[in-house]
Amino acid sequence: MCKRRGFVYPGSEIYGGLANTWDYGPLGALVLSNIKKLWWERFVEKRDNIFPVDTGIIMNPKVWEASGHVASFTDPLVECKNCHLRFREDHLQAINTVRSKTVPFLTTTVSLDKDQKIALIESQVCKKSSDGKHKWTERKLFNLMFKTFIGPTEEKASVTYLRPETAQGMFVNFKNILNTERPELPFGIAQIGKAFRNEITPGNFIFRTLEFEQMEIEYFVRQGDWERVFEEWKKEMWKWLVDIGVKTDDNHLKWRPHEQKELSHYSKRTEDVEFNFPFGWGELYGLAYRGDYDLHNHENYLNNTQKLSGQNLKYKDPNTGEEFFPHVVEPTFGVNRTFLAILLSAYEEEDDRVVLKLNPHIAPYKVAVFPLVANKEELVKKAKEIYLVLRLKLPTAWDDRGNIGKRYYAQDEIGTPWCVTIDYQTLEDDTVTVRDRDTMKQERVEISNLKSVIDKRLGY
Amino acid sequence: MCKRRGFVYPGSEIYGGLANTWDYGPLGALVLSNIKKLWWERFVEKRDNIFPVDTGIIMNPKVWEASGHVASFTDPLVECKNCHLRFREDHLQAINTVRSKTVPFLTTTVSLDKDQKIALIESQVCKKSSDGKHKWTERKLFNLMFKTFIGPTEEKASVTYLRPETAQGMFVNFKNILNTERPELPFGIAQIGKAFRNEITPGNFIFRTLEFEQMEIEYFVRQGDWERVFEEWKKEMWKWLVDIGVKTDDNHLKWRPHEQKELSHYSKRTEDVEFNFPFGWGELYGLAYRGDYDLHNHENYLNNTQKLSGQNLKYKDPNTGEEFFPHVVEPTFGVNRTFLAILLSAYEEEDDRVVLKLNPHIAPYKVAVFPLVANKEELVKKAKEIYLVLRLKLPTAWDDRGNIGKRYYAQDEIGTPWCVTIDYQTLEDDTVTVRDRDTMKQERVEISNLKSVIDKRLGY
Repeated sequence: MCKRRGFVYPGSEIYGGLANTWDYGPLGALVLSNIKKLWWERFVEKRDNIFPVDTGIIMNPKVWEASGHVASFTDPLVECKNCHLRFREDHLQAINTVRSKTVPFLTTTVSLDKDQKIALIESQVCKKSSDGKHKWTERKLFNLMFKTFIGPTEEKASVTYLRPETAQGMFVNFKNILNTERPELPFGIAQIGKAFRNEITPGNFIFRTLEFEQMEIEYFVRQGDWERVFEEWKKEMWKWLVDIGVKTDDNHLKWRPHEQKELSHYSKRTEDVEFNFPFGWGELYGLAYRGDYDLHNHENYLNNTQKLSGQNLKYKDPNTGEEFFPHVVEPTFGVNRTFLAILLSAYEEEDDRVVLKLNPHIAPYKVAVFPLVANKEELVKKAKEIYLVLRLKLPTAWDDRGNIGKRYYAQDEIGTPWCVTIDYQTLEDDTVTVRDRDTMKQERVEISNLKSVIDKRLGY
Repeated sequence: MCKRRGFVYPGSEIYGGLANTWDYGPLGALVLSNIKKLWWERFVEKRDNIFPVDTGIIMNPKVWEASGHVASFTDPLVECKNCHLRFREDHLQAINTVRSKTVPFLTTTVSLDKDQKIALIESQVCKKSSDGKHKWTERKLFNLMFKTFIGPTEEKASVTYLRPETAQGMFVNFKNILNTERPELPFGIAQIGKAFRNEITPGNFIFRTLEFEQMEIEYFVRQGDWERVFEEWKKEMWKWLVDIGVKTDDNHLKWRPHEQKELSHYSKRTEDVEFNFPFGWGELYGLAYRGDYDLHNHENYLNNTQKLSGQNLKYKDPNTGEEFFPHVVEPTFGVNRTFLAILLSAYEEEDDRVVLKLNPHIAPYKVAVFPLVANKEELVKKAKEIYLVLRLKLPTAWDDRGNIGKRYYAQDEIGTPWCVTIDYQTLEDDTVTVRDRDTMKQERVEISNLKSVIDKRLGY
């Protein structure tokens, strides 16, 4: 349905695709835009202590040394010296590097030891792609950052990386924000932007992809406040999910604290909001307590006994003059996973229709306008007039194909909350019917009131 | 000013920066967001024949073979075999690859021959960085696309590129759009997104950077219509510039047709809108007639006698059944250059103040709220109340530092159109003063009318 209706297309499809890349079609692009707009209004424009930034995907590689990503942002892989098949040891996934294609995801995730895993891989995957003789290397750590080169050389001096998270753009600009905004604790820095991870992934549609978009806040607090603020952000994130139409009952959504051993290199406590996707429970958002790890490192990280930045990144208390590193609570919202959870929550199959019960603010179109029949010139003309006026005020669809019932169902499937039909009575009394997606009930409305009726239903 | 007030910061500044990268601070991020929002509303949401997409930065590398970018998207460079100094032969710019830093831009752009250029480079640049002996290579073409590798190998099979333009994401999805939207000619596909070019640049602030954001439309027409549509888009682009507050008089803005020899590999006619930047006239936007170059190539491009895609990318006329490649008129709007042209157009130094006369829809804050003085508790309390209510409806700033005159000037400098002051009279009759940025005149307004007074001035 995502492809047929223009929500999501496979990336580079005409060239056979490219594993773990997806493009968003017209409806998908509208939904993404709506998600980001609502988030921006809520967490940036309406808040008085969260400052937005828009920082580079390409940064000085020293950023990633100091942040720990060059050393620690890795996946454990083993490789067959013979056929160059590699697989990720922890997830039981395999990649055939010769064809640089991910092989089908192995669903068995029980904890096998290394030999058992290799046996499983060999039995399920390798026999298709090699001579059957494998000499496995010891496990090696492969960095997940995409490497690139600045300038027309590929020497070591010109290597840099595509950012694997938007967070560092905010930490690196911490002092700039202090200087230009003179904020007092607690305050946040926010941004929406793309990040890239060179992962071997099981696919799962748009769940885990090579490039993805984050909406992220670094929220700076006094050390003693972090636990309270952490709890506040748990509530904020949950409320947001309720408001945008993600199912929040126990069968669909839960908080899952990270165990000690799975914590990222920078985090002392992390909880994920997990959504029950069709392929199982998976991380929707993360909330991490990063302590003062990042600011501390960007000030102090040593490269051969010399500090890489040498900049003072401490906060100075305007009342006491005390200087210290604030601690950080980091709520991270994945744009693409939000999209997926919203669609899955909204999708319903009823007796004779498929309906996407999207929050109207998320829906690609707020209204669709139809002439009752397409072969009556006066009806079409009147409907077109109404459509063109409405379109200037609200995202509005037009449809004059098939019969009216089919058109309703076509709009139900893409989540359009209201359908406006211009019929014979319209020509007499300037009223139209407004049909509700969820109740399927119709109401007659004067054309002059149409915009305000819809605005009211949208909560304006 | 851009740095001091939080519009633009140097990229990765605490690590000594990274040439030709910049980050946007809180005010810059708000302006960028406003530019993109206005463009999206105008060219996507309000238009009934332009369909948005949101496609990947990382695509199958075959896309860039077929598009001609692997072969033709290059800069001519020469290199000293001795000290590895390289320079771009056409622009007289030099890069020291050893330190991967661009050397200062040489302003002489008169047409010298190659020997004269080298002599100039040597006299101005090389003597600082080498032993004075240069052995120049013949000119070599360096590809401008950033290279990266998918998967944990750096073999040829896994090479791909960061997109150097958003356009190809739209051409590659042309058939998908036909299938899901069944549009009739003329229609457009639009997207906003980042692109990357590994250029040796003269800097010029945010004018030319390694990564930048485009707002782009591929507008598909019948071949016979392209010249008319080209003229229509020239008007559309100009009108947009007028509306967002770019100076459009002869001294600031002009159309410049490309000469035959400077046309891109895909274009038969291109005109740039040039703005008179402080460093001279430079491309603000481009309008290119791409013919059927892209669709034709994505269908037909040969790789060793085999078609790379083998997909039929023709449009089928719903009335005649005729199949053909539509032709393309492509208006491209650079987000970052729009930002720069808007700021330069809005910036004015008056007798005793600096004022950014931004279009209110572009301004980071629409309103600022102050208590007349900061040490009267009732005034501060009342002002905070008004601020917090207004903030939920409009981007609103707060300031209680310094005296009222300084605060007005501080808001003038960042382009806030209206300042609301809560004074002693407010406590008596619930009115406030609203001071206009451009006229500097004040008007008393009832608090209950404040939002509607501002809405009216915003044109809502």
